Amino acid sequence: METISTNRSFSGTQGVYKHASSATGTEMTFSVFVPDHAPGAKLPVLWYLSGLTCTHANVTEKGEFRAACTDAGIIFVAPDTSPRGEGVPDDPEGAYDFGLGAGFYVNATQAPFSTHYHMRDYIETELPALIAAQFPADMDRQGITGHSMGGHGALTISLRNPGRFRSTSAFAPIVSPLNCPWGHKALGGYLGEDRAAWTDYDACALIDGGARLPDLLVDQGEADSFLAEQLKTHLLREACDRAGQRATIRMQPGYDHSYYFISTFMAEHVRWHAGRLKG
Amino acid sequence: METISTNRSFSGTQGVYKHASSATGTEMTFSVFVPDHAPGAKLPVLWYLSGLTCTHANVTEKGEFRAACTDAGIIFVAPDTSPRGEGVPDDPEGAYDFGLGAGFYVNATQAPFSTHYHMRDYIETELPALIAAQFPADMDRQGITGHSMGGHGALTISLRNPGRFRSTSAFAPIVSPLNCPWGHKALGGYLGEDRAAWTDYDACALIDGGARLPDLLVDQGEADSFLAEQLKTHLLREACDRAGQRATIRMQPGYDHSYYFISTFMAEHVRWHAGRLKG
Repeated sequence: METISTNRSFSGTQGVYKHASSATGTEMTFSVFVPDHAPGAKLPVLWYLSGLTCTHANVTEKGEFRAACTDAGIIFVAPDTSPRGEGVPDDPEGAYDFGLGAGFYVNATQAPFSTHYHMRDYIETELPALIAAQFPADMDRQGITGHSMGGHGALTISLRNPGRFRSTSAFAPIVSPLNCPWGHKALGGYLGEDRAAWTDYDACALIDGGARLPDLLVDQGEADSFLAEQLKTHLLREACDRAGQRATIRMQPGYDHSYYFISTFMAEHVRWHAGRLKG
Repeated sequence: METISTNRSFSGTQGVYKHASSATGTEMTFSVFVPDHAPGAKLPVLWYLSGLTCTHANVTEKGEFRAACTDAGIIFVAPDTSPRGEGVPDDPEGAYDFGLGAGFYVNATQAPFSTHYHMRDYIETELPALIAAQFPADMDRQGITGHSMGGHGALTISLRNPGRFRSTSAFAPIVSPLNCPWGHKALGGYLGEDRAAWTDYDACALIDGGARLPDLLVDQGEADSFLAEQLKTHLLREACDRAGQRATIRMQPGYDHSYYFISTFMAEHVRWHAGRLKG
């Protein structure tokens, strides 16, 4: 692991790091915020998975998470959203919703994406091991959140790994890739047209299939231009209702899909996680 | 005035606007955050002047001011740092510290800059009139702050306009352009080599000349790479001590010149202004 930069911020250290990933076969960049803490202390970890087009940098610069993480004594980890670099294939037309910046947190099985697009393994296995080895992280106290495609990632990773995350939340998540154009394009492209292979990557299908979380917090802007066609929050609400899954799903009047929305509710999410990551 | 964008954020409206400026003879862009408020209510205004290379966007995206402004019921205005557009001359070598993004809040007298570089008139006269006309702003309750070159702007504008600002603060300000390379280059280029013309644009010289503020808050990172050569905070401390100028000048260990520093202390500055802008 190589340090790209560190900056003191909110009585802690905001770092950006890179490492050679065996999961993706590329160099991967990520950011970690570590609040000041007693020597030898281990802090709980909150994962934040970003949305389409983003790198680690968007939430690191605009997410407004550091004050709340310092108050709560929580490490905040922000990975990239896809492999990048020479030899990594992109959307054939360079679209924003597939390929670079759009890994969808899957292990791709379709050529040419199956060589590098292993974001599921990267986020579920490789990066947690690196975080545990390199940072003062208590891996028995992890929470996970994310935005849009990253909300999809947070929900599906948590649902597929019961017991790993004490707390799960999301900002404007894609709740059902099986039922929206972004999902059809991404899962079709990475996994092929057999939709049975997609259900592992669909929060609603996972809940319908019996997966459960201790609790769930979702905030969704009502003025989000992607709500009706892509995000379809009501499908998650219906799946939770059918399953008896405990969930707080809040529609926020006037808010859109941007970091102006995310940052507004970030501190509240961090505190919500903190309450579940204590001791 | 034309609206470029509005986003709901922290129970308020973050807007970006542009207008044809008569002061600069160009189109100028700025951002305004207005917290929700009672119909007809007028809110105090906090001006934030940005540093070298910045536009309105840097603080708008990374400044973390909205939560505190909403709590305090304060409007936050972030102007651009220079005229821009066709026909606006830049540094002959395209350097970052003169010309575009580096207006230094002066009225230039030297060709070719004297045609458009009238940032003093723009910030002191034209933009306040526009803000008063277009936003629910109580112009009897104004505060001003800024970062680096914008800290220089905040200090000098406030010192030259006694009584206009109830509160003045700065993040890592250039405290004495007469005594640093950035200042020599900018004031020499905009005002010519007669240093007598520079003293209007030097906070320490203005204080030495008798200008006073009710109070002053400055935060400066000790790990700021520009501290020793350009910012020279000690000169401001010495000028305040000589003059009996009330001031709280805080050196912050470990912090640098970036928005990771600014955002850390932003809420505290907003609250400091709010305490002086009440009722």
